[in-house]
Amino acid sequence: MTHGDEGAARTPAATRADPFERFTTVIPAGGVGTRLWPLSRAKAPKFLHDLTGSGTTLIRGTYERMAPLTGAHVMVVTGEDHREAVRRQIPELDVEDLILEPSPKDSAAAIGLAAAILAHRDPDMIMGSFAADQVIAPVDAFQDAVREAAATAATGRIVTIGITPTYPSTGFGYIRRGAQLDVDGAPHAHQVDRFVEKPDEATAQRYVDSGDHLWNAGMFVAPVGLLLHHLRRTEPELHAGLTEIAEAWEAGDGSAEEVMARVWPTLTSTAIDYAVAEPAADAGDVAVVPGDFTWDDVGDFAAIARLNPAEHEDAMTVLGEQARVYSDQSSGVVVSDTRRVVALIGVEDIVVVDTDDALLVTTTDHAQAVKQAVEALREKGDSDVL
Amino acid sequence: MTHGDEGAARTPAATRADPFERFTTVIPAGGVGTRLWPLSRAKAPKFLHDLTGSGTTLIRGTYERMAPLTGAHVMVVTGEDHREAVRRQIPELDVEDLILEPSPKDSAAAIGLAAAILAHRDPDMIMGSFAADQVIAPVDAFQDAVREAAATAATGRIVTIGITPTYPSTGFGYIRRGAQLDVDGAPHAHQVDRFVEKPDEATAQRYVDSGDHLWNAGMFVAPVGLLLHHLRRTEPELHAGLTEIAEAWEAGDGSAEEVMARVWPTLTSTAIDYAVAEPAADAGDVAVVPGDFTWDDVGDFAAIARLNPAEHEDAMTVLGEQARVYSDQSSGVVVSDTRRVVALIGVEDIVVVDTDDALLVTTTDHAQAVKQAVEALREKGDSDVL
Repeated sequence: MTHGDEGAARTPAATRADPFERFTTVIPAGGVGTRLWPLSRAKAPKFLHDLTGSGTTLIRGTYERMAPLTGAHVMVVTGEDHREAVRRQIPELDVEDLILEPSPKDSAAAIGLAAAILAHRDPDMIMGSFAADQVIAPVDAFQDAVREAAATAATGRIVTIGITPTYPSTGFGYIRRGAQLDVDGAPHAHQVDRFVEKPDEATAQRYVDSGDHLWNAGMFVAPVGLLLHHLRRTEPELHAGLTEIAEAWEAGDGSAEEVMARVWPTLTSTAIDYAVAEPAADAGDVAVVPGDFTWDDVGDFAAIARLNPAEHEDAMTVLGEQARVYSDQSSGVVVSDTRRVVALIGVEDIVVVDTDDALLVTTTDHAQAVKQAVEALREKGDSDVL
Repeated sequence: MTHGDEGAARTPAATRADPFERFTTVIPAGGVGTRLWPLSRAKAPKFLHDLTGSGTTLIRGTYERMAPLTGAHVMVVTGEDHREAVRRQIPELDVEDLILEPSPKDSAAAIGLAAAILAHRDPDMIMGSFAADQVIAPVDAFQDAVREAAATAATGRIVTIGITPTYPSTGFGYIRRGAQLDVDGAPHAHQVDRFVEKPDEATAQRYVDSGDHLWNAGMFVAPVGLLLHHLRRTEPELHAGLTEIAEAWEAGDGSAEEVMARVWPTLTSTAIDYAVAEPAADAGDVAVVPGDFTWDDVGDFAAIARLNPAEHEDAMTVLGEQARVYSDQSSGVVVSDTRRVVALIGVEDIVVVDTDDALLVTTTDHAQAVKQAVEALREKGDSDVL
């Protein structure tokens, strides 16, 4: 794919000075977080929990990180089941900015629909897409990166924020950066050379040593017109379906429900990376801004233990407002969603997650295996607790 | 203490042929079983649980082991809180045979009161005292021992059933047997030389090697008159108090409650071993019959794992009628008192006890430390779950 034939999208994005005047934060709130079962589950997914002991759910934290930059210009895309929970978490959200998916359709449909609705409102809109289930610190380093990304997006680029790697992770995809860009207000912006899949260990080490690879955290800032331009090229049917839904959504004539119910189920499920980011990078339309902050998508209970270190070595990390934990000769993490007394004696690196209808006991080393347990429970017919 | 000065008690006990014609099973149902918390607790002590997966509570099992020998001639001594639970477990129990202690007073008061009431009914009565919280197999070997003990008791002796040791336990007291007795129907009865306290390891090994030491399981069969005779000698005030309560209990004039409330709190708390068994042995009045059966007082969750072996190595033992357990790469024991799903991943020799208001996670190696946890919880003010 070559760049330039439809590059006209880059022009209008540069017409106004402060990119945050035409900026909307989009928060895709999709995944259940199976590896965090039984805390996280279909009815109470990961983003609705406080997994850092901060007193704030992950989705509220996502909103609060962006609000100082963009005010209440925020849109959430989530499942229909979570309508009320999301409104409780973000009461600032206008009803027309809460998009409810009838069924999960992966990120291209969720983010593409947000882009299509925003483009309908203002073709020059810039969106910043930040998943609802991430933990980031410090917040000012994150905001600095978003400012540079917004300034770069305003020059007509899709801008990903790449995390400076601190170790050779094989669990993340990487972004290889190319030439430095010359953008006012974005001294660290580079062209993206290409996106690369999760590497093996040796390759990951090479990436880290190279100094020109960043972790792909799935965060990006983009002119909605440019995003839709690439989506139309790679997934024309998906683009057409999303455009039809967006028009009905904005019509305000009550047709949105019918159109959503009819069109949504027909849409292709694919990731925004494949549908937009990678082809756009090949077309030279993607930039990257480095993020010098810690970032965690809290993938499993080992992450929770890591993000919430216990006060002493050989001590328990305890999460849960009403937790009543007694611990003796034990270490690890307890997540309590009940008022039950939890007594731990002589168990090390343990993970105990106590909810009303399900209990998990594992170790931090086995945190990834929770996903298989959930699958096995589904096969056994225990779906009532999933 | 010498024997003979008050040995007259031995005569009347021999006047009828079949000792089971004047036999009552006494079941002291006292201890909470703190090391089995949170399954066992003040409101639901150990004896009210099925800890062997047999479908039968321990107290019902105790009754059923004796019923073929003694029919419904049974008396239970328990706390007031357990009146209804015990009646549900043993509906065969007559109301005048359910003795309710206003407060715990150790075994001398509990067993002594049963003896005093039975003596009031028939001075020639023989009682067999078997704690409510023991697991015994095979039952016919146990019954054989009880038959020999009853035949021996009918000759005017307090007869303990000693367990043939299978290893040098430091957790039990021992009985050193003396000369063989010549009793019809009791070919294995011996005189008891003396009772000895829990030994250290080397001493325990010497006891086992000697061949003349048996474990003291606290089971005995005795003419009530002889038991009371020794109690009067060693604890005259306790004896007098119990006699007063027994007379009121048997009067049937409604005075029992008042007398119990007034006298019981004044009684000495002491063990039947110190008040009767040891001084009676010194007086030459105690015999022992060996029991060739396995015996366990289910002292902790390690005992539960031992008594309920998992079907495969590397597998979980699961107790609980409604248990919903998923286990992967795990071994140990789960006791479930709820309908909650319990998922275990990668935990070995684990002990998980799940109840409505409290959860214990430990290992079989730490099973004894549960007692300290309960004490710590009491100090923390978590008595609602104890």
